[in-house]
Formats: sequence, structure tokens, C-alpha cells
Amino acid sequence: MTQTSDQPSPIQPARGNQVKRQKWWGWGADGDKPYAVHNKPKFPAFAQEVLGVDILAKPLQTPDFSALDVPASILGDELRQRLVEAVGADNVDTGDELRVIHSYGKGVRDLVRVRRGQLGRVPDAVVHPGNTDEVQAVMEAALEADAVVIPYGGGSNIVAALEAEPGEQRQVLSINMGRMNKVLEIDEAAEIALIQAGALGPDMEAQLNEEGWTLGHFPDSFVWSTVGGWIATRSSGSQSDKYGDISEVTRGLQMVMPAPAGDAERTQLLELRPLPSYSSGPNVREMVLGSEGRLGIITQAWMQVHKLAPVREVQAYFYPNYEAGLKAAELIAHSDVRPMMLRVSDANETKFSMANGSKSSSKVSHYSNKAVQKLMEAKGWDLDQICISFVGFEGSAVHVRYAKGAVNKIVRSQGGMNVGKGPGTLFDQKKYDIPYIRDFLLNIGVPADVSETATPWSRTVEIHTETVKAATKAWEEAGTRGFIMCHLSHSYHAGACQYFTFAIADDSEQNMRTYDQVKRAVQDSFMAHGGTVSHHHGVGEEHSPWMAQDISEGGVTIQKALFDGVDPGRNLNPGKIVHDGKPGISSNSEDA
Amino acid sequence: MTQTSDQPSPIQPARGNQVKRQKWWGWGADGDKPYAVHNKPKFPAFAQEVLGVDILAKPLQTPDFSALDVPASILGDELRQRLVEAVGADNVDTGDELRVIHSYGKGVRDLVRVRRGQLGRVPDAVVHPGNTDEVQAVMEAALEADAVVIPYGGGSNIVAALEAEPGEQRQVLSINMGRMNKVLEIDEAAEIALIQAGALGPDMEAQLNEEGWTLGHFPDSFVWSTVGGWIATRSSGSQSDKYGDISEVTRGLQMVMPAPAGDAERTQLLELRPLPSYSSGPNVREMVLGSEGRLGIITQAWMQVHKLAPVREVQAYFYPNYEAGLKAAELIAHSDVRPMMLRVSDANETKFSMANGSKSSSKVSHYSNKAVQKLMEAKGWDLDQICISFVGFEGSAVHVRYAKGAVNKIVRSQGGMNVGKGPGTLFDQKKYDIPYIRDFLLNIGVPADVSETATPWSRTVEIHTETVKAATKAWEEAGTRGFIMCHLSHSYHAGACQYFTFAIADDSEQNMRTYDQVKRAVQDSFMAHGGTVSHHHGVGEEHSPWMAQDISEGGVTIQKALFDGVDPGRNLNPGKIVHDGKPGISSNSEDA
Repeated sequence: MTQTSDQPSPIQPARGNQVKRQKWWGWGADGDKPYAVHNKPKFPAFAQEVLGVDILAKPLQTPDFSALDVPASILGDELRQRLVEAVGADNVDTGDELRVIHSYGKGVRDLVRVRRGQLGRVPDAVVHPGNTDEVQAVMEAALEADAVVIPYGGGSNIVAALEAEPGEQRQVLSINMGRMNKVLEIDEAAEIALIQAGALGPDMEAQLNEEGWTLGHFPDSFVWSTVGGWIATRSSGSQSDKYGDISEVTRGLQMVMPAPAGDAERTQLLELRPLPSYSSGPNVREMVLGSEGRLGIITQAWMQVHKLAPVREVQAYFYPNYEAGLKAAELIAHSDVRPMMLRVSDANETKFSMANGSKSSSKVSHYSNKAVQKLMEAKGWDLDQICISFVGFEGSAVHVRYAKGAVNKIVRSQGGMNVGKGPGTLFDQKKYDIPYIRDFLLNIGVPADVSETATPWSRTVEIHTETVKAATKAWEEAGTRGFIMCHLSHSYHAGACQYFTFAIADDSEQNMRTYDQVKRAVQDSFMAHGGTVSHHHGVGEEHSPWMAQDISEGGVTIQKALFDGVDPGRNLNPGKIVHDGKPGISSNSEDA
Repeated sequence: MTQTSDQPSPIQPARGNQVKRQKWWGWGADGDKPYAVHNKPKFPAFAQEVLGVDILAKPLQTPDFSALDVPASILGDELRQRLVEAVGADNVDTGDELRVIHSYGKGVRDLVRVRRGQLGRVPDAVVHPGNTDEVQAVMEAALEADAVVIPYGGGSNIVAALEAEPGEQRQVLSINMGRMNKVLEIDEAAEIALIQAGALGPDMEAQLNEEGWTLGHFPDSFVWSTVGGWIATRSSGSQSDKYGDISEVTRGLQMVMPAPAGDAERTQLLELRPLPSYSSGPNVREMVLGSEGRLGIITQAWMQVHKLAPVREVQAYFYPNYEAGLKAAELIAHSDVRPMMLRVSDANETKFSMANGSKSSSKVSHYSNKAVQKLMEAKGWDLDQICISFVGFEGSAVHVRYAKGAVNKIVRSQGGMNVGKGPGTLFDQKKYDIPYIRDFLLNIGVPADVSETATPWSRTVEIHTETVKAATKAWEEAGTRGFIMCHLSHSYHAGACQYFTFAIADDSEQNMRTYDQVKRAVQDSFMAHGGTVSHHHGVGEEHSPWMAQDISEGGVTIQKALFDGVDPGRNLNPGKIVHDGKPGISSNSEDA
């Protein structure tokens, strides 16, 4: 193994510098197939029942970019010249569409605003550095010009972490990391890989897979999120129970950051070597994790990798109700075995999944299997309360057999039943589809969003019950219909993450106010019932109003000390995480 | 479960406010039995062979406290009055012996200096707060008086983190947390416990055990270290492979810290609720972990606990050489099973362990079993290179059998052999004895110390070989004899910690110079071969000279921003971790 260096040889040749981009008005690339509603025989009736909407009324169409009034770039000649020197003219882009794409992430508010032509503070240039030296040169130029620097990975952020502050008078640069997309090195003995920050999930995983490895990090945003973005937001993937949160996967990293006042240079490199564990003072790696661009630009990282498991299996289970599923999850988390994934859907999400089945899925699914239904009825289960659960197993055949045996015993102890591998196979195929459904629903006037929280096991039932209640009250007070569903998504020894998805049937111009009321009710409920403001989506601008409740005023003092000390000029993605007295999401909707 | 509060009911009544203290001149309490050299038939010959010293020459005796010239306290009446108001007159102590005890930790340099009467900047008072409010009142008074505040747990620190800066002109307070020693609450569903920061290992573990729980945190300092001390130094225990480093065990915490400039109050509380995981910006919990008193005083913490395992077993193995043992450890860490402990001694440490056996130990030990020796010889092993390894298993009987089977298979694949439970039982009994041997050896003119590091698996052999070489070169250059031994102590997916113990046969007045040369050679070797400056002993003053190499200049910038922002007056244990241009351990020895 060699050490981190600025110019390592990639394991394979560059795959071209064509940076993949999402479309400006929705999730995914231009030309991606929209949600296949016509292949979902049960979904229209379900949507009619729970939201009172006709989802077939209005087919999704590409909005007209030319209708947008894109503010002109204020990039000055001097900074432009410096940037061109740093990365080459081809990699400094001031085109309108690219700047609009880089104005926002892909939260529902982002899509509403961009589709309505509410563009906010569009960046003045999109810069594409190709290596660490270029990132350093770009930051040097930006600090010299007192410009604002916002790192950009796959653009899938949903907490308003990618947008400049409204009214920002300085030049704003969005730094697209997409050219830095290589797995540079694999240390086979240590099972760590050096990966560039701009590598999108599938590109990175393909490079690892070719050599027999996996990162094991599969967030729902996988297709449109990057290694650097995962680190910057403290991401967690669907298989974190085995592979760990990104904070546990990241072993070392490199970041371009400002130099302290008085230094000859304006920037310096943070170089954290790959280490399994250490006691070198307050953990700097953990300060970069979740820093959302406020400390610098992450350029590459040493990440734990694992040999592709010989056996991989996702088993499905049904429980008579969500409480039984949560209890089983708790017992599994406290048992001697650790599955690679443990997911329990509440009754609403179970119904949604059943309704969202495609024409062909009944072949492999047991959702609608008459025999399973009869068995549930025979057990006296209320079919309105049943919950589906997926448990993933990986390892040697012996290990999978052992772990599955232990889990099955726990499931049975809580009255659950195993229904085999069919639904798990389907789940694996569809797991990245949700944002397309979200975009489809938005088109017919149904804004939908997600909020997730983590609590100790002792509060999982409480926070679920109370959050559903709070959201329902909020949309009722707003005079709309709504739907909320949830699944337990990540398990730990001390507790679990629950992931809520909610939708409101409000196609009015004021629907972002209604959305805010529901979103605020959900987040307030998290705070009131021992939850965290966010488990893996980060803070951005959207969650910052809850930070003092989440980590206490003392925690905010500590984070401010860190940001202000490292970036006294507020050049690095200012206003995110802790912001200076500005209101939170409500202001965004009032802007809108 | 109820939430963190300032005045929770303890699970059991207070066990009295008598704070346990170590003796001023060595490890452990006054009256502890010294190292039982007369019960170690093989040890004198071993010491003669490797160091050329007669360890029976000079029996350990208590040095004379009255020979010390203890600097007078400069505690002023005003601050004294405020402290008495805060904690009561009984809990503000300016007595000489107590102040001397609180001047240093228990590193070898500390003991040398205190025994030689080199007392440094002795604190002016030892304050014993009894709850969070009292800690807050003490810090309020200290900041008002511009005094220095140094938190003190069990006093076992070995990296010079407990002493005031030489020449400190301001009043210095050592804050002994020993009265805050209760397990306040156990959340059985979440498997977390709220524990006061001043609880010593055995007291805390006894309170948990009574209710059927364990923290699973057993550092070598266990008997004389506290929950708050573990958090403040990022401790790790011998069973961390199962239970995690303290950074993974700590789920929430409370800390008294300065308020930001401009606030009405001088102090504020940091309250981090117990959470399994979160993405609320840079992780504040991870900034407090390892902060060594520079951000505030930790008062209590929510810690993960586990039900006492039904089966616990430590199996012993022999390998033909250390490389084989390291390779087996790597394969175990990458396998589907995770033992609770995995320890591999190098050949020198194996010899030390064999020589350190007591008269009675051969009954349960296979160390000197003739049959085992014959078997090794039959395999063609070089008995000079053999290495002992301990692997601990915990869980249900089924799980222990499964895990043991998997481990045994890996051990055999590397040519190792299982020798049963006997040596493991002995190891468990003796695991906290090392500091008494160290104190005994110092008495006969053999300073001994420990340094540990973590690397990726790809560098475990290299860093071991090179560090042994570097230390040997250093003592040879100093014209003394020395001994160095090592064990792999903690395993992770990405790498492992190796724990070195070294001794030099130098009883001269200048022996701390020789010690420094060896210590510096060891730490320099860690830096040169991809290791961290410290795996779990922390930084203090002793390791701060290596910080820029360990975490890069950028990392030091980030830590400084944090400390300077939170504590602009440098009142909180100043000079530790990153210090302002002052030299490191060499200066200490030149003082000496």
C-alpha cells in the first residue's frame, strides 16, 4: 500500500470527463423514463382512496426551460481568468441551464420553486476541477476574490444545502466535483479504497465490483449522489446495519480548506491518513463528516470496502402490526447476529407497497398471495394493520444459515411469519424508484417529501405514533388531505432510524405553505419525542431552525466556533447548518 | 425512559462521598500490595537476561512525602469564597498531599518527577463538585477569576494531560469528579445507561452488574479511570472488538462549558441527548470525545450497555511467529464473526508473560506444559519465536460455539493451535497488574512505559518491525540496555492497534533523557509507518509535538479553531493537544 498522494495512478483509465447531470426540473437524467403509472393496476384506486386525487389526470411533461427568467451571471473578468487558469476554459461554465441545475438540490421545495421559475440566487459559474491541485487553485482564486464556494456532488441534496443565501452580493461559484470520479487505489489487506469525492454511487461501485469489492453504501439517492456528498452530509445507506453509516465507513480523507490568517498561502490541505481508530484529540474526521461545505471541499477519501459476499439474500416477513415489527427489530439489534439490512414498514407503507406493485410483480411477490392472506386471517390478524419487513443476510452460506435461523426465531417470538425471498427480490429492484414517483405526484398537485429521525429503542413506538398524529393534524388544519407512511430503516444497538414519507393533496399556488406546516409538525414531533432533527439527510438551510433543540445551545456554540474559526470570511457555503438569525423553511415558502 | 435531567434519582443510594484516591508517588491506592516479585520464580532470571538488572536488589518502599518542597497555594480569598459557596467548604481542598496527587497523572515521567520532588505547577486547590449545578458554579467562579480549570477523574492519565502549564501565573483549580460516581438511570429497552462522569470503572461496573448489565469497557486503567476520563481521552478497552471504543459506546452527554461572549451567563450546558446516530452537522459528540478538558467539564453521559452474556470464554492459541498471529487476526476481523477480544502477543511479550507466571499459575497454564512444547517442536516451530494469542467469545452458548468454530478454522489456516481456556483465565486475573510491575521496575532504576498506535492491516507487520528496530537503536545510541514488547490489542475492519511496552535499564539521574530518546524514536516510527500518534491514551502535552504529522497542519488548524472559539481566554486545561509553539516531551525531561 502506498500513502495518499496528490497524483495517484487510477486503477483503470479515466472513463471520460463527461460529467453526468440531473435534469433541471426533477430527479434523474434528461430522458429517464417517468414513473410507470400505467403498469401499476392498483395504484390509481389507492391514490383516490387515501388522497382523493386522480393520478391519471395529467401526464408528466417536460417544463419549458425558455420560460425561465435566469438572472445573469455576475462573474467578473478577474475571477473568471483565475478560474480558467485553474481548470481550463472548458471547465468554467456560465451557461444558464447548468447554472439553474446547480441552484438547488432535489427537495420537493426545490422542484416546486424551479418549476415555478423562482430561481433564488443562481450561481454565477459552475466550475469543474479535475484533481486536488485544481480544487486548491479554484479555492485560492475564490478566497482572493471574496467569492462564495458551494461544493456540488450528484445534486440530490434535499435540505437546501446547495443554494446560495438569498441576496448574496458576492460572486457565487458552484464547484461540480463530477470529473473526480475514480477509485484510485485499493489496499486489499486493509480492505480500504481511495476514492475521489465526485464519484457517483453506481460509477464507484462498478469500479469496485470489477475488482471483487463493494463499499456496501446504498442510500436511496445512490444513483445521484457521490462519495464526497455522502461524507459532507453524514449519509447512511440501506445496508448500514452491516457496513456502517458513512461516518463509520470513512477512514481517511483529504480536504482543501482555508489557511489560517497570516499564512503565506490562502488555502491548505487537510490530510487525514487511513486509520481504523485513534485518540488524537477531538476527531477531525468527524468534523468534516457532516460539514456540508462549511469547512472546505472534500477531494478524496479512504473508505472501508468489503469483498463481495458469496451469499446475499433478502427475506421478507409479515407482522400482525407495526409494534410487533419494531419489537422484533429491537431484539434482533440486541442479539448475537447482525443482518446487513433490517427494514420494517408500518401499515400505511405496507399498503402503499402492495398498491404500487406492477402487473408482473405478482409472479414473485407474496403480497397478494391468497394462501398468505388466508393464513393471516386464520391467525386473527387485522389485514389493515399488517406490516411487511425485509431482513438482508450476507456472508458465507454457513453464516447466512446461522443468522437467518437466529432472526427467524426472534420474528416468530413476536408473532411474525417468514414469506420467503420473493418480495425481497422485488424490493431490491425497485429501491431507487421513489423519487420518480415523487416527481410524478408533484406534477398532479401532490407535493411529497421525506423526513427521518433516530431515537433510542424505548421511543420508537412513541415517535412513530405521535409524528403520524402531528402530521395528520397539520394537514387537517390546513384543510387538505394527506398521507404519511414510515419504515424502520437503520438499526443500532441503542436505537433505530425511522423514515417517514408524507404527501399532501394540495395543487394550489400556496401549497408550499401547507407543505411547511406539515414538515414543521413532523420535525417538531421529532424534537418533542427524543428524536434527532435528521438521521442521514443532513441539516442544510432546511433543518437549521431546529439545531438548538437538537444539539442544545452549547452544541450550536461549538459548531459556530468551528465554522467561524476555519472560515472567518464566510466564503464556504455560508448559512448552512447554523445560520445567523435567519428564519428556516417558513421563509422559503413565503418567498415562494 | 425519562430524559436527561439535572437531578435524576440514582438507581441506588449514594455509596458515600468518600472519594477514592491514588497514592502520590505511584499507581493505585495507599497500601496496595506491590508487585509480588517473590511469587514469580522465573522473573528475576528473565530481567537479568534481557536488561542485565537484579530486580531483587532493592525492595519497593514508600518515599517520604515530608521531603517534598510543595509550592504554596496562591488561591485568593475571593475565588476561595466563591468555590466554598459552590461546593461547600469540605469540598475545596488546599492541602499539600492532595494538591501534589493532582499535579500529575501516572505516566513514568510523572512518577520520576514526583519522586524526585520536581513538582511543576501544583494546582492551588482541588475542588470536588457533587452535581452538574456545582460544576457549573465552579466554572462560573473560575472564569470570573480568570483561573485555570483542569478536570480530574481517576488520575491515571499518562500523556501529561492533568498538569498545569509550567509558569502558569493564574490560579489553577483541579476539579476532582469523584463525588459524581453514580449510575443514575438505565433505559432497558434502548440498552443505554446515564452515568455520572466521576464513576471509576469498578464502581460503575458494580452498579451495572447488580442490575444485570455491563458497559463492556475494560481499559488497562479500568480500576483507576472514570467514565468522564474515558470520554475525554477517547479511551478503548480490551473488549472493544465487541463493545466498541468509548467513542462508539457514548451515545449522549452533558458538559459544562463557557457561554459565548456577550451572553448574560459565563457558562452554559451542552446537552446531547442519547441518540444512536444522526446527521446534525459536524458531530459535536465526537468533538467532546478526546477534548481532554479543553472544551469544558463532562458531567454525565448516556452510555450503551449490554446484558451480561450467558457464556464468556477466553481461548488461548499459539502461533509459530507474530506474523502468523497478525495474519490470523486480520482474517478474523474480515470474517463473518466478531469475537469480543482478540489479542496477539509478539515473541518478546510471550516470553515476558511466561517469565511472569506465578508459582501457582502452572496449574492452569499451558505456557510451560511439556506436551505443548513437544508438539511445537514436532511442528518445527522455533520456540524463540512463538506467540500467544487470546480470543474472547461472548453470547449465547450457540453463538459462542459458532464463533469459536469459525475462529479456530482461521487460526489453523495460519498454522496456529488452540491450547484451551487455562491461560485465558490467568490473563483475566492478571490484566490490571502491569502498572504495579512498572512502579516496581522504576524503583530499581528501570523506567518503563507504553505507547500504542493503530494502522491499516497492510502496515501491521511493518510498523511492528520498524518500531522495535527504532527503539533498539535509540537505547543502544544512549548506551543502555532496553527491552520492547508488543501485542495486537484492538481489531477493526480497516486495521488494528498494536500496544508497545518498553523499558530501559538506566537508573541515572539523566534517565529521563534516555527515556525521551526511546519514546521519541517510538513515536517517530509510528508517524513514519502510517500509524497514529495514539490509539487510546490521548494527546495531552506529551504527544502534541506529533499532531501536525498525525492529522496534518489542516487538522491542527481545525482543532485550534474549535478550542480558541469555545475558550478564547485559555482557561480550560490550556496547552493540551495543540499547544502554542511550546516544545513537547523533550522539554519535560530537560526540566527534570
